[in-house]
Amino acid sequence: MSNPNKSKKDKEILADYESQVKDVRAQLVEQQRCLEQQTEMRVQLLQDLQDFFRKKAEIETEYSRNLEKLAERFMAKTRSTKDHQQYKKDQNLLSPVNCWYLLLNQVRRESKDHATLSDLYLNNVISRLTHISEDSARLLKRSKEIVFQLQEDLMKLLNELYTVMKSYHMYHVETINAESKLREAERQEGRAKGAAGAAEPVFGLRMEERHQRRNAARKMEKMREKRKAKYSENKVKTLKARNEYLLTLEATNASVFKYYIHDLPDIIDCCDLGYHSSLSRALRTYLSAELGLEASRRAGLEVLEGAVEGLDPARDRQRLLGLYPTAFCPPPRFGFQAHMGDTVSQIASQPQVQAELTLRLTQLQTRLASLKLENEEVKKTWGATLSTLQDMTVLDDYDVSQSFTHSPSSESVKSSVSDGYLNKPSLAKRRANQQETELFYFTVRPALGDRSLTTGAQAKRDPGAVCLLLFQKFREYLEGSNLVSKLQAKHDVLKKAIAEGEPFKVLSHFFHIKDTTL
Amino acid sequence: MSNPNKSKKDKEILADYESQVKDVRAQLVEQQRCLEQQTEMRVQLLQDLQDFFRKKAEIETEYSRNLEKLAERFMAKTRSTKDHQQYKKDQNLLSPVNCWYLLLNQVRRESKDHATLSDLYLNNVISRLTHISEDSARLLKRSKEIVFQLQEDLMKLLNELYTVMKSYHMYHVETINAESKLREAERQEGRAKGAAGAAEPVFGLRMEERHQRRNAARKMEKMREKRKAKYSENKVKTLKARNEYLLTLEATNASVFKYYIHDLPDIIDCCDLGYHSSLSRALRTYLSAELGLEASRRAGLEVLEGAVEGLDPARDRQRLLGLYPTAFCPPPRFGFQAHMGDTVSQIASQPQVQAELTLRLTQLQTRLASLKLENEEVKKTWGATLSTLQDMTVLDDYDVSQSFTHSPSSESVKSSVSDGYLNKPSLAKRRANQQETELFYFTVRPALGDRSLTTGAQAKRDPGAVCLLLFQKFREYLEGSNLVSKLQAKHDVLKKAIAEGEPFKVLSHFFHIKDTTL
Repeated sequence: MSNPNKSKKDKEILADYESQVKDVRAQLVEQQRCLEQQTEMRVQLLQDLQDFFRKKAEIETEYSRNLEKLAERFMAKTRSTKDHQQYKKDQNLLSPVNCWYLLLNQVRRESKDHATLSDLYLNNVISRLTHISEDSARLLKRSKEIVFQLQEDLMKLLNELYTVMKSYHMYHVETINAESKLREAERQEGRAKGAAGAAEPVFGLRMEERHQRRNAARKMEKMREKRKAKYSENKVKTLKARNEYLLTLEATNASVFKYYIHDLPDIIDCCDLGYHSSLSRALRTYLSAELGLEASRRAGLEVLEGAVEGLDPARDRQRLLGLYPTAFCPPPRFGFQAHMGDTVSQIASQPQVQAELTLRLTQLQTRLASLKLENEEVKKTWGATLSTLQDMTVLDDYDVSQSFTHSPSSESVKSSVSDGYLNKPSLAKRRANQQETELFYFTVRPALGDRSLTTGAQAKRDPGAVCLLLFQKFREYLEGSNLVSKLQAKHDVLKKAIAEGEPFKVLSHFFHIKDTTL
Repeated sequence: MSNPNKSKKDKEILADYESQVKDVRAQLVEQQRCLEQQTEMRVQLLQDLQDFFRKKAEIETEYSRNLEKLAERFMAKTRSTKDHQQYKKDQNLLSPVNCWYLLLNQVRRESKDHATLSDLYLNNVISRLTHISEDSARLLKRSKEIVFQLQEDLMKLLNELYTVMKSYHMYHVETINAESKLREAERQEGRAKGAAGAAEPVFGLRMEERHQRRNAARKMEKMREKRKAKYSENKVKTLKARNEYLLTLEATNASVFKYYIHDLPDIIDCCDLGYHSSLSRALRTYLSAELGLEASRRAGLEVLEGAVEGLDPARDRQRLLGLYPTAFCPPPRFGFQAHMGDTVSQIASQPQVQAELTLRLTQLQTRLASLKLENEEVKKTWGATLSTLQDMTVLDDYDVSQSFTHSPSSESVKSSVSDGYLNKPSLAKRRANQQETELFYFTVRPALGDRSLTTGAQAKRDPGAVCLLLFQKFREYLEGSNLVSKLQAKHDVLKKAIAEGEPFKVLSHFFHIKDTTL
């Protein structure tokens, strides 16, 4: 009844199925491993981040301490100076000293900010990372429980499918057997009937024999009926088993699909739950701290920038003059001291000296006119030189922002401190130029016309030379203007005296006035 | 002739004048000292600034090295990881790993920027300060030369005034003397004339005596004339000397005034020449460097900020699934395996099973409807819990910028790392709350209605508890939806089969279907 060829078909199907189920089971194990590995990597990353921030906190603390020491060292030094005493008194500092104080303040501010940064790393960012790490481990545990449960359910379904498949096979085998038994019975019945029909015309059969044959035919028919019923019953059973198999197959496929396509991603999401958002907040805390430090630093630099803009020579000069009144306060005027009862205390333009005085006034006027003209020229040169120098000193050679340009790969930094002050032309070259030109002007230049210098391209490059010229012209101007002021004073008082003595005017010509006595 | 009383008056005037000149001379010396002191302070300030920047350059270099070491340490570690290999291959990183790489990049960038800063201090700022210091010394030398010259000129004038004053005194004394001699002569002449007039009526005088008297009178008259001429001459000399004194006095006062009021400030300006502007440029170089560092740091932080914003669980999940295809790729569908020549491969809705199948379909429909309703409720709770959790995780508790607020005095810094994560309520308290609540839900809560949690104030504070609830609901939902998907699959295939088998529909009632076999 059992066909070895056909029963091999059963085993094949089951072996195929078992192999397929084995693959699925291997995948399920692999999935658990992946989730674990993912969490391990996550925990490792969080550990690295914590180590990183711990170490960076140390660096920031050390940096902060060094800055504090630096500021303190110079603060202590300045605290003892006269300027600082004065500062405490009237809060009024020379503008460069003000810059210096703000520079030290800025360093102190940076020191405090980097200490705060370190503090935030240690007491906020790292704590957050620790919690994320703990949460990740806990979420992994929960997720694994759920995965395990789902995988159990899935395996149950696969077993169920195996069972219904085997039932189907069993019923189908029975149906096949029942059918073949039925066919066997039909064949026997048919052969018996054929034998009976062929024997009928032969009257050589005994009654007893005939009775026997009829009995056998009835028996055969009964058996065939029984086998037919059995076959029908098995066919329905097979039908039902096949239906059950097909339904279970659909259900299993739907569940497998749902597990792989919907449930697994959902579980991974649950395992990730809050991880990105918490990590984001930890990193945003870091960013907020860094940007806070930035903003504070920038605010400090802006204050310092204001102080640099407030560098004011005129105000500082006034302050210096005010600081040393004994040195810079003009002495009282020298008054006329009448000698032993002399009652005249003004210039007397009496007839005897009228002519002499008038001549002297005329000479003073002529001399003053030419002196003023001459000195005006000197002053113009001086002014031109000064503005040349000022043009030079407003030169924007202090922008070094390019030194901080990072290439897009952010791997290499332009290490050029070269731009700005040190190049175009280089600092060393500029200084050499300046000294050379200075020497030139000390020795040679005074013989030449100086004004050419103030516009020449060379002057543009040599503030030292221009500065020297400025001093020469300044000195010339001072000498000239001093003479002018002296003669002008004499002229003014003389003119007034003559005007008052006019009524006595007579000609007198016996006084000889030398130019030198003017 | 010389009156000791009157000559004391001369000496008084000269002594007063000499004392006044002595005061002026002392002031002039003081002025030179002030200029020197001013320059000394300036050079000292510049020296302090150089020392400061030299020391700060050391600190920046050390900071830079420490940051470099920090970055390198973790870079080396990550370079060996699987993620990094993958990164090199496809530049596609899990978003948290991307943040980590950019964080290390940022540290490396800061390291380079601080090295550049140090470089700029040493090779630019300090050089400028050195030059300003040299220039200050040179300007002081030139200014002192000019001051010396002006002071010499001033002293010459004061000496001249002394001389003309003495001349005036001398001529005036001579005039006084001439006058007194004249008066003496007049007196003698008058006395002689009086004696002659009184003797006329007395005829007792001899001719010789008369001749003698006439001679004496003539002699006296002659002397008086001579003395009168001398007196007049001296008076004019005195007049001229006084005029000269007055003119010189005016000239001297004008020069003194000019020196104190105009020349001294001009000289101080010349001594300051370029100092403020050069110092300004040196400090602006420092500011430019600091702001350059700022800008670079900020640019780096913005890149990192972008990466933090790009933290994306969905993309990371997809990447994970893609990374492990063997674990997450759905297996092939399980197909129907016909058993040994069975030709039917679909659900057969033959008359024998039609009724049973129809009943089963009805039961499936009823069961599915209630299951779906139930599961929809679970899903709603799950969704509400999830959004509660998401509301919590977008909580802005990462702003620590207040920690960097400096008081206006810029002397004290709020040392509060207290705001943000660690307070409102404190971190420790929050964690304790969370763990407590978690315990509560594990042991007690499942018996209660869960939805209350998702809106309650307590839930707002306990992401842990909400998270736990989420897992419970997720599990419930998964179980429910798995059952739904299984039954739905059966339902759909059954419904289709019945529809196709409709023509054969007959009533059959001898199949008993248990609910459990659904």
